[in-house]
Amino acid sequence: MTITPPALSVFESLESEVRSYCRGWPAVFDRAQGARLTDEDGHSYLDFFAGAGSLNYGHNNPVLKRALIDYIERDGITHGLDMATTAKRAFLETFQNVILRPRDLPYKVMFPGPTGTNAVEAALKLARKVKGRESIVSFTNAFHGMSLGSLAVTGNAFKRAGAGIPLVHGTPMPFDNYLDGRVPDFLWFERLLEDQGSGLNKPAAVIVETVQGEGGINVARPEWLRALADLCRRRDMLLIVDDIQMGCGRTGAFFSFEEAGIVPDIVTVSKSISGYGLPLSLCLFKGELDVWEPGEHNGTFRGNNPAFVTATAALDAYWADGQMEKHTLARGEQVEQALLALCTEHGRLGASYRGRGLVWGLEFADPARASEVCARAFELGLLLETSGPQSEVVKLLPPLTITPEELDEGLRTLARAVAATV
Amino acid sequence: MTITPPALSVFESLESEVRSYCRGWPAVFDRAQGARLTDEDGHSYLDFFAGAGSLNYGHNNPVLKRALIDYIERDGITHGLDMATTAKRAFLETFQNVILRPRDLPYKVMFPGPTGTNAVEAALKLARKVKGRESIVSFTNAFHGMSLGSLAVTGNAFKRAGAGIPLVHGTPMPFDNYLDGRVPDFLWFERLLEDQGSGLNKPAAVIVETVQGEGGINVARPEWLRALADLCRRRDMLLIVDDIQMGCGRTGAFFSFEEAGIVPDIVTVSKSISGYGLPLSLCLFKGELDVWEPGEHNGTFRGNNPAFVTATAALDAYWADGQMEKHTLARGEQVEQALLALCTEHGRLGASYRGRGLVWGLEFADPARASEVCARAFELGLLLETSGPQSEVVKLLPPLTITPEELDEGLRTLARAVAATV
Amino acid sequence: MTITPPALSVFESLESEVRSYCRGWPAVFDRAQGARLTDEDGHSYLDFFAGAGSLNYGHNNPVLKRALIDYIERDGITHGLDMATTAKRAFLETFQNVILRPRDLPYKVMFPGPTGTNAVEAALKLARKVKGRESIVSFTNAFHGMSLGSLAVTGNAFKRAGAGIPLVHGTPMPFDNYLDGRVPDFLWFERLLEDQGSGLNKPAAVIVETVQGEGGINVARPEWLRALADLCRRRDMLLIVDDIQMGCGRTGAFFSFEEAGIVPDIVTVSKSISGYGLPLSLCLFKGELDVWEPGEHNGTFRGNNPAFVTATAALDAYWADGQMEKHTLARGEQVEQALLALCTEHGRLGASYRGRGLVWGLEFADPARASEVCARAFELGLLLETSGPQSEVVKLLPPLTITPEELDEGLRTLARAVAATV
Amino acid sequence: MTITPPALSVFESLESEVRSYCRGWPAVFDRAQGARLTDEDGHSYLDFFAGAGSLNYGHNNPVLKRALIDYIERDGITHGLDMATTAKRAFLETFQNVILRPRDLPYKVMFPGPTGTNAVEAALKLARKVKGRESIVSFTNAFHGMSLGSLAVTGNAFKRAGAGIPLVHGTPMPFDNYLDGRVPDFLWFERLLEDQGSGLNKPAAVIVETVQGEGGINVARPEWLRALADLCRRRDMLLIVDDIQMGCGRTGAFFSFEEAGIVPDIVTVSKSISGYGLPLSLCLFKGELDVWEPGEHNGTFRGNNPAFVTATAALDAYWADGQMEKHTLARGEQVEQALLALCTEHGRLGASYRGRGLVWGLEFADPARASEVCARAFELGLLLETSGPQSEVVKLLPPLTITPEELDEGLRTLARAVAATV
Repeated sequence: MTITPPALSVFESLESEVRSYCRGWPAVFDRAQGARLTDEDGHSYLDFFAGAGSLNYGHNNPVLKRALIDYIERDGITHGLDMATTAKRAFLETFQNVILRPRDLPYKVMFPGPTGTNAVEAALKLARKVKGRESIVSFTNAFHGMSLGSLAVTGNAFKRAGAGIPLVHGTPMPFDNYLDGRVPDFLWFERLLEDQGSGLNKPAAVIVETVQGEGGINVARPEWLRALADLCRRRDMLLIVDDIQMGCGRTGAFFSFEEAGIVPDIVTVSKSISGYGLPLSLCLFKGELDVWEPGEHNGTFRGNNPAFVTATAALDAYWADGQMEKHTLARGEQVEQALLALCTEHGRLGASYRGRGLVWGLEFADPARASEVCARAFELGLLLETSGPQSEVVKLLPPLTITPEELDEGLRTLARAVAATV
Repeated sequence: MTITPPALSVFESLESEVRSYCRGWPAVFDRAQGARLTDEDGHSYLDFFAGAGSLNYGHNNPVLKRALIDYIERDGITHGLDMATTAKRAFLETFQNVILRPRDLPYKVMFPGPTGTNAVEAALKLARKVKGRESIVSFTNAFHGMSLGSLAVTGNAFKRAGAGIPLVHGTPMPFDNYLDGRVPDFLWFERLLEDQGSGLNKPAAVIVETVQGEGGINVARPEWLRALADLCRRRDMLLIVDDIQMGCGRTGAFFSFEEAGIVPDIVTVSKSISGYGLPLSLCLFKGELDVWEPGEHNGTFRGNNPAFVTATAALDAYWADGQMEKHTLARGEQVEQALLALCTEHGRLGASYRGRGLVWGLEFADPARASEVCARAFELGLLLETSGPQSEVVKLLPPLTITPEELDEGLRTLARAVAATV
Repeated sequence: MTITPPALSVFESLESEVRSYCRGWPAVFDRAQGARLTDEDGHSYLDFFAGAGSLNYGHNNPVLKRALIDYIERDGITHGLDMATTAKRAFLETFQNVILRPRDLPYKVMFPGPTGTNAVEAALKLARKVKGRESIVSFTNAFHGMSLGSLAVTGNAFKRAGAGIPLVHGTPMPFDNYLDGRVPDFLWFERLLEDQGSGLNKPAAVIVETVQGEGGINVARPEWLRALADLCRRRDMLLIVDDIQMGCGRTGAFFSFEEAGIVPDIVTVSKSISGYGLPLSLCLFKGELDVWEPGEHNGTFRGNNPAFVTATAALDAYWADGQMEKHTLARGEQVEQALLALCTEHGRLGASYRGRGLVWGLEFADPARASEVCARAFELGLLLETSGPQSEVVKLLPPLTITPEELDEGLRTLARAVAATV
Repeated sequence: MTITPPALSVFESLESEVRSYCRGWPAVFDRAQGARLTDEDGHSYLDFFAGAGSLNYGHNNPVLKRALIDYIERDGITHGLDMATTAKRAFLETFQNVILRPRDLPYKVMFPGPTGTNAVEAALKLARKVKGRESIVSFTNAFHGMSLGSLAVTGNAFKRAGAGIPLVHGTPMPFDNYLDGRVPDFLWFERLLEDQGSGLNKPAAVIVETVQGEGGINVARPEWLRALADLCRRRDMLLIVDDIQMGCGRTGAFFSFEEAGIVPDIVTVSKSISGYGLPLSLCLFKGELDVWEPGEHNGTFRGNNPAFVTATAALDAYWADGQMEKHTLARGEQVEQALLALCTEHGRLGASYRGRGLVWGLEFADPARASEVCARAFELGLLLETSGPQSEVVKLLPPLTITPEELDEGLRTLARAVAATV
C-alpha cells in the first residue's frame, strides 16, 4: 500500500504540540466500520487499538447506530445534567438487570462526568470521605488518568512531571510479579501496615488495574487479586478496581475482576461502556459507601443521554447471554497461538508475550523494537500502539467483535511487521 | 399544570445520592426542542437553565441535528483519540476562520478531554510548566470544576470539603466588587506581589471568570478585567480566562472577554462549544506558550468527532456574521427590563438583579426565597436554578436562540413565581 | 576607633556560607558585660541588638551569673529531658507566682525544645489538633522561624524559598496598617470567613506578633489586636501570639499583648526567657487546650536546667515588682525623643520612626541607607541591625537594663552614623 | 530502696500533659555526677539512658565543668548568634584538627540552631536546594525529629499524627533486615528508581541512622550501609547520615558511619556534641554542597558559646587519641556478655539482644515486658527506657565514661529487674 503524505497543515499550525497518536499514524481518517478505518484517500486500516479500549464493539456498530439515530431523530434529551430522563432510566434498569443482578453485585451507580479520570477522581474522593484519610496506595506502572487526583496515583514519571506540583498523598506498591517472584506477594505492603513505626500514612484505599494497559500489559494473577482483596479487608482499606480499560468484556467477563471472584468496594468504568465511543463513565460502589451529599461531586456532561442510549443497546445486544465472553476468550486463544508462533520463530529477538482475553502485549529484548514494529504495521495498514514505561511493549487491543478472519489478517500483518524489523 | 409524581424508583434505588438537579425538578424528561423540554407524561417545560450553559443554541437544534445525523449515517469517525480526522480538520479550520482570525486571536488549540474540568486541569498544568511555579490565584466564589486541580481554585466550601485532602497551591483574591467598593481594585493583590515579605507564594497564573455563574452571577466590569490583565503582565503571571460557562456567546460576543478588549494568555472553553450538548472542551493558549511535549496531557475522549461536527455546524450557522451577538444583547435588554419591573414591583423583598448578555441573576434580601421561587417556577413549567454560595440567587440562563415570545413567557412565569412566594 | 581586620580564616574556610551576622560585624568577639561586647583586640562595642532580643537583661547579667555558677558548681542537673527536677520546679513555681498569677493568665506550660521555632511548631500542632483543621492564618511580614512548620507562616520570600518544597497550609492576611489605612481592619479577613464561597480553607488558628521585629518593626495598635482577638473568638479560631521577640518585657509589660488587654489562646516565648542567652522556650496555652498525649511532641534539650536556673533568677530579680516595665518605658521615651530629633534634623532623608517600649525602627526614603547606617555605626563601635523585607529599617533593640547614659551614647553614635551617610 | 512519692504538684498542675519521662521515673532529680543522678530525697540512680544519648561523657563531667565555669566567670560571650567569637573559633579549629582532618572528612560546618531537629531541617533544605527535588527517602522506624520537616521522615505513626497535617514528600524504604532477610537488600528501592513508571517521585536524598535508637536499636550492617552509599551515588541522590544519637562515639568511633568506611554527603550531629548536655547541633556537608546564601537558614541560639567551650574541651580531652573508642568497645563487650547470659538464662522469655558500641537493645517475645522491666529497674535505682514502635525493646545507653564496675552494677540490676517480671 502506498500512502500519500496527508495534508496535515491545520493540525500542525493550529493544534497544540501535545497531540500524539496522529504523529505515529500520519493519516487523516474519515470513516470507520467494525474493525476498519478508512482515511480520506481511501486507504483502509485494520484496527488493533480500538480507541484505547473504547471501541470493544467496533466502530459505529450498526445495532447501536440504529438506536442512536432513532433517539436523535425523535429529539430525545441530549444533554441532561443529572436530571431523570427516560434514556437514563432505561440504562439504569438494563445495567441492573443485565450486569449487576446476574453477578450479585451490590453496587450503586454514580455518573461522575463522562471521562475515565473523572470517575477515578470521584472514587478517590469517596474513599477519602468514607475512611477519613488522605493517603491512597497505587501500584507500579499504574495509569489512572491525567487530572491531579488521578495523576497522583499514576506511575509514569513523564506524565507525573506534567503536573507542575509535587504529587503527594499516594504511595506505590509493587504490582504482581514486579520483583520477578523474588519477594512474597504483599510482604512489604503488609509489613508497612502492621508496623506502627513504618512511616506509611495509613491508606484510605488501594486502587488497582487487574491488567495494566498503559503500564505494559501486566496481568495480575487471580490469586494475587484475591490476596489483595483480603489484605484490604483485614487492614480496613477500600479496594478500588479501575476497570476503565479492562472492563466491558475486554478480558472476557464483563468486569475484569470476575475471574478472581472478588467484589471490589468501588469500581470505575468508562471507555467502552457507551459502546459507541461516546463519552460516558460510571463510578460503582457498595451501597453502604454511598455517603455522598447531593451535588458534592458534579459535572456538566454527566448525563450524556445519547451515550445512555447506545450503552443500553450494547448491554441488551451483547450481554444478555454468555456468548460475548466465549467469543472473546476464543479470539484470545487465537491471538495467543499466533504470538507463540511469532516468539518461537523470532527466538533470537528475545520476544515474549502475555495477556488475557483480547488484550495482549508483545515485548522484545530491545525496547526500541516495539515502536519500529508499530511503524511498520501502520505502513502495512494495521493500527498498533506501544505501551509500558519505555514504550517497549506492542499492545494488541482489537475490537471484541472482530471476526476470526480479520484477527488472522491482523496477526499475519503483525508477523510481517516484526520480520521487517529484524 | 398538574404534575403526576413520576415513578423515580430506579433513580432512587440504584443511582447514587450524589444526584442533585433531579431532586429540584422531579420529572422524568423524555424529549426536547429549542427552549422546551417534555417529560414522559407530556408536560412541557420552558428551559431557563440551558444545561447550565451547555445549550446556547437550544435543545436538539435542527441545523446541528441534520449535520450530526448525516455524519453518523455515513459512518464518520466517532471516537478518534487525537488522531487527525476530516471532522477535526473541518472544526479547526472553521474555528480559525470564523472565530480566531476575525478577532485576531493568536491561539493554539488543545483538546484536553471533553469536560470543562479537564480543560481547566490542562490550563493549570501548562501555566505551571511555563512559569515553573506551583501557586495559582483564583477569586472568591470562583467555580472551575471538581477534579482536584480545578477544585483547588474553586471557592465553594462544601465542594472543596469533598476533596478529602487539604486543597493547597491556590490563594483566593477578591472578585470585582467583593468588598462593596470599599477597597481600591487589586490594592491587596498588588501589595502582596510587590512586597518580598508578604508571604504570598508567587503565582504562576491567575484564573478568572468574567461573570461568575455558579458563584452568584457576579459580573466583572471591563475596567476591572483590563486592570487584572495589566497586573498579570506587569507581575509576570499568566492570565487564564475560564470561559466555559460564559463563552460561546452567552454574554453577547463569542468570548466573554472581548467586551473588555483583553487577550488572555490561556482560555478554557467547553459547555456550548459543541452546540448540541455533546461533551467537548478546548484549551486555547498563545502560540509561544505551547511548550507541551507530545502526550504530556491526554484523555480517551478528547477527539469526540460527532461533537466536532455539531461544533462546526454551529460556528458556521451562528457566528459567520454578527447577528448572534446582536440577538443576544437584544434578548438581554428584554430580560433586564422585566427584572427591573419585577424588582420595582416587589420593592419590599429587597430584590436586586445583575447580568450581561443572556445571563442574569435575581437576588432577594432573604436568601431562602431564591429556592422557593425556583420550586414555584417548576410547578408553573419553568426550569430555573439558583446559584451563589448560599443558593441565594435565581439564575436566568435561557438558550440564546430563544424567541422574544418564549422569553417573555418565561419572564412572566418568573414574575408569577415570585409573587407566589410573597 | 581603628579596627584591625581580624583573622577570620577558620570561619571562612570551615564554616558554611550560611553565616550572616559575622559578615556585617567583622570582629571576633571575646567577652561581654551588660550592654557592651569586647572583641579579641580589645575594641569595645555598645550593643543595640541584644542577641536579636535574647539579652533583655544584658550580657552575662551578674545576678543570673551568680545563680548559674552556683548551680553548675553544685552539680545540679544539666540535661534533664522532661524529667522532674528541682530546677524545673523552681522555675515553674516562680513563673506561676511572678508572671501568671498576678496577670490572671490561665496557662499551662509546655517545654517544647529550647528554640523559638520549636515553640511555634508545638503551637501550630496543638492548634491543628484542637480544631481538626490544617490551615493557619499569618500576617504579611511575619517571622516565626525556619523549620518547615514555622517557615510556612513566615512572610519573607527569600527564607521561604529555602524550604525547597512548596509551603502550604498558610494564608497571609494584612498586618495592621499594611494597606496604609485605606481598608477597614479585617474587612477582607472577615469577609473570607463569613462567605462559604470564598475559597479560604477555614483556619485552625491565627498567629501574630504584636510588633513585627524581623518584618520591619511594625507595631500593631491595641485596638487592632483586640479586634483580632474578637474575630478569632467569633469565628472559632485559636489566637496564637508569638511573643518570642517581643515578650519578656521588650515592649514594657512582661507579655507584649498585655497592653491590649487580650488573653491569647496560645503564647510562644523564647529568646530572653532564660535571661542569660541560654536556649529555652515555652509554649503556653489555656488549660482546656491541653489535649496533648504524653510524648506527642518532644525534644532532647527541652529540659535545659541551667536555663531554668537563670530564668528563675531573672523573674525573681526583675519581675517581682513593676520597676522593670517603668524603666523600659522611660528608656523608650528617651529613644523616641532622639529619633524625633534625628528625623527632624534629617528631614530631607525622608526618615521616619516607630516603636514601642525598647524596640524601635528607623526608616529612610532610600532603603539602602539603613545598611549604610549600620555599617557606619559598627565602625563607630555600635552594633545595629536592619530589618524589613528589603532590610530598609534600622532596628534599635538595646538591652532593657541599659543605663540612660549608655542609651544616650548609642543614640548619639547612631546620629553620627546617619549624618555620615548623607 | 524505698522511694517516697515526690511532691509532683506543680508539674501536674502547671506543666502540660505532653510530659513523658517524668511519668516513668516519678522522682524529682536534683543533682548528678558521671553515671549517677540523685533525687531531692537523696536517692541515687544509675543512669543507663544518658539523656537519650546527650551525656556520653556523663553528667557534669569535671573536665568540661572546669572549662565551662572558667568561661562564665570571665564573662565570655554567652549568646552570639552567628557572630565570630573566640569560643567558636576554638571549637572550629579543634573540630577540624581532632575530628575532621584525621579522618580525611571534607566537611564544611553549619550551626543550624542548637537542637537535633533543626539540624535535620537544615540538612533536608540543603539537599532539596542542591538537587532541585522535593522528595526524601527515609527508612522504616526512623526517628529524625518533631518539627514538620523532620517529622515527615520519621516513622512513628503516633508522632506523625501529631502534625495535624498530612506529612508528605517522604517515602519509607525497608531498613536493614526489615523483611527478615527474605528480600535482597535495596531490590525494591533500586527497582523503583530505575523504572520510569514506578510512581516514585525521584528523591533528592536518603536520610538514614546507622543504628536506629528510637526505632528499636536496629543495627545496620556495614555492607548494607556501603550498598546504600553506592546506590545513592549511582542514582544521583545525596546520602544524609543522621548521627545525632549514634555519633560522638556512641558506637565506638566518633562518627557511627566510620566503621562502614563511607563518607556521607551530609551529616547531622547534636546531643553529645557539647559534651555537657548543653544544646548544640551541627550540620556537616561536603564543601561542594555549600550552596547556602547568607542567612538562608538561621536561628537565635545557633551560637551557643558555652556549648562551644564544653564541646572543645570534650574533643581535646577524649578524642585527641584513640582511647575513647577502645574504651567504648570494651564496655560494649561487657554489655554483650551480660545480655548473652541474661538471654540464655531466660530462654523461655524469647529474649534477644542486639547493639554496637555502647548502645544495646533487649527484646522479649512479649512486647509489654520491656516496660515492666524498666519500671522494676527504676525501683531498683536504674534508669532505663524502652524504644521501638511498640516500646518493646529495653534500650541500654549508659555514658561512655561509665566505669566497668558501674556498668556491671547496672547490668546486674537489669538482670534482677528481668527476673522480677518473670
